[in-house]
Amino acid sequence: MRAITIAEPGGPEQLVWAEVPDPTAGPGEVLIEVAATAVNRADILQRMGFYKPPAGASPYPGLECSGRVVDVGAGVAGFVPGDEVCALLAGGGYAERVVVPAGQVAPLPEGMSLLDAGGLMETVCTVWSNVFMLAGLAPGDTFLVHGGASGIGTTAIQLAHQFGARVIVTAGSAAKLAACRELGADVGVNYRDEDFVEAVREATDGRGVDVILDNMGAVYLDRNVQALAVGGRLMIIGLQGGVKGEVNLNTLLTKRAGITATTLRARPPQEKAEIVEAARNGVWPLIESGRFRVVVDRVLPIEQAGRAHQLVEDSGHVGKVLLEVAGSGG
Amino acid sequence: MRAITIAEPGGPEQLVWAEVPDPTAGPGEVLIEVAATAVNRADILQRMGFYKPPAGASPYPGLECSGRVVDVGAGVAGFVPGDEVCALLAGGGYAERVVVPAGQVAPLPEGMSLLDAGGLMETVCTVWSNVFMLAGLAPGDTFLVHGGASGIGTTAIQLAHQFGARVIVTAGSAAKLAACRELGADVGVNYRDEDFVEAVREATDGRGVDVILDNMGAVYLDRNVQALAVGGRLMIIGLQGGVKGEVNLNTLLTKRAGITATTLRARPPQEKAEIVEAARNGVWPLIESGRFRVVVDRVLPIEQAGRAHQLVEDSGHVGKVLLEVAGSGG
Repeated sequence: MRAITIAEPGGPEQLVWAEVPDPTAGPGEVLIEVAATAVNRADILQRMGFYKPPAGASPYPGLECSGRVVDVGAGVAGFVPGDEVCALLAGGGYAERVVVPAGQVAPLPEGMSLLDAGGLMETVCTVWSNVFMLAGLAPGDTFLVHGGASGIGTTAIQLAHQFGARVIVTAGSAAKLAACRELGADVGVNYRDEDFVEAVREATDGRGVDVILDNMGAVYLDRNVQALAVGGRLMIIGLQGGVKGEVNLNTLLTKRAGITATTLRARPPQEKAEIVEAARNGVWPLIESGRFRVVVDRVLPIEQAGRAHQLVEDSGHVGKVLLEVAGSGG
Repeated sequence: MRAITIAEPGGPEQLVWAEVPDPTAGPGEVLIEVAATAVNRADILQRMGFYKPPAGASPYPGLECSGRVVDVGAGVAGFVPGDEVCALLAGGGYAERVVVPAGQVAPLPEGMSLLDAGGLMETVCTVWSNVFMLAGLAPGDTFLVHGGASGIGTTAIQLAHQFGARVIVTAGSAAKLAACRELGADVGVNYRDEDFVEAVREATDGRGVDVILDNMGAVYLDRNVQALAVGGRLMIIGLQGGVKGEVNLNTLLTKRAGITATTLRARPPQEKAEIVEAARNGVWPLIESGRFRVVVDRVLPIEQAGRAHQLVEDSGHVGKVLLEVAGSGG
């Protein structure tokens, strides 16, 4: 088969569509013919050499895909060749075929195209596990998500809104903020002009927000804690603004608040399977009733993965940049 | 009645046993004749002027007491005058009488003296709410508590040990570490000679600890995160080592770990009542079967509260320093 390989750590030009050995389904695994995958920030870090795939994972990038089941290994129940599915991967989605533990595979939601489903799993599982399973966002809560126009952002806005939370987003342009509002955001903050702590204070009558989903890390750490309400939970899932952060623990203590940082990729398959199942129970009904969709910025052929990375690095997109694999009928 | 008043913010000499107005039980409240109370670090901060009592709380120090019910306000069920009880207070325990919402009162555990029960509630509720309710310490987990010989430490060691966790403690002397071992600590680290991160690494074969109960704040923040296992939870309940701390968020993220800071005193009565009930269900059976006790360093008459503060500030004690109120038969 062919896959996007990383010639050596570096820029988007290092991504090369090349012939590689075919994967085969081992016990408990499903072999998928990939229809589509999508770009995630972790893929870019991996390309640059900063994010080693976990032990046992494919060396090729790609944390999610959609496609058709080609084969199943011993002990797999619930999937048969020909099934249309989507999957949460530890890597290897940028390829014609990929193997994945069966617990990380879900049936295609009714009403979603096989193409769009290529960008469904990574953001849905990340948002579901952090915002709902760990932080316990509840109806009536106020939720702040940074980078509201990103793949994570567009997913988090829709889910928090549908589950009855009030949603505040930050983004870097009026156009992005408008897109966020269409998805259900109640308050938009342009971080280039406004201090989000002050904006949160105004929007909540000084109360603060119950849950924050943050991709910036160090640069926002202390301000995120300032923006929390009493009992608030800061969930950090990315470190785009640096690693070493300072925080005022008295503010945290006075608010009886928490900071949790997580990554999905390194979790063991059993935990991923639990997250996939929970996300499926929570989100599939919303998809099937037309209340949640994958926001697609654009679709590029998988051979242009380098160009897709550049687009995401330039941060001009709204939602997901999908990569389509030709010949699979996606 | 008489109470320990704070003449003005300052040293132990500012604590003055003086005549003050009698409290009365309002709706939902219990009036207790105090038999004993105990010194907590928060009392010292309050004496210094750094810890304002929450709105509506007594201006006198004292976060816990034991004693006899004198009167109950409208709507109080479950307590009648003469009952021997202990209580979690928002303040006012350093006095002959105190009023407290009924949800924060518990019957004296069988087999515990009224005197010892004066030092029971604050540490038990703090440890129970943080280590068990929030951090979810489970049998087989490894638990690290700093300041193992303190009131919090001696409580946390016994409870974690009784609930099947492996217990690592830090303390500042061999005598204190020996006392911790007698209470159930498996590993003792003298923080004056040893780096606790290194000691934890050795004691856990590099795995780290599942839950940390920390009273030091900033000065231990980054090292505490280093000492956590994957999925670990750092619970900060004191800031004796400073307020502004730096933390490596990549370490936190790689471990999928969390930091929570809490204080018990500022919680609303409803939350305190839930904690008191949970602690009672969890700890009273251990007390009544002889598997948990209040570790008492010494007992002083309430008039010597200043001397008791000095003893706690000097950190030579093991367990609680109790204050006995004369004439109440405690």
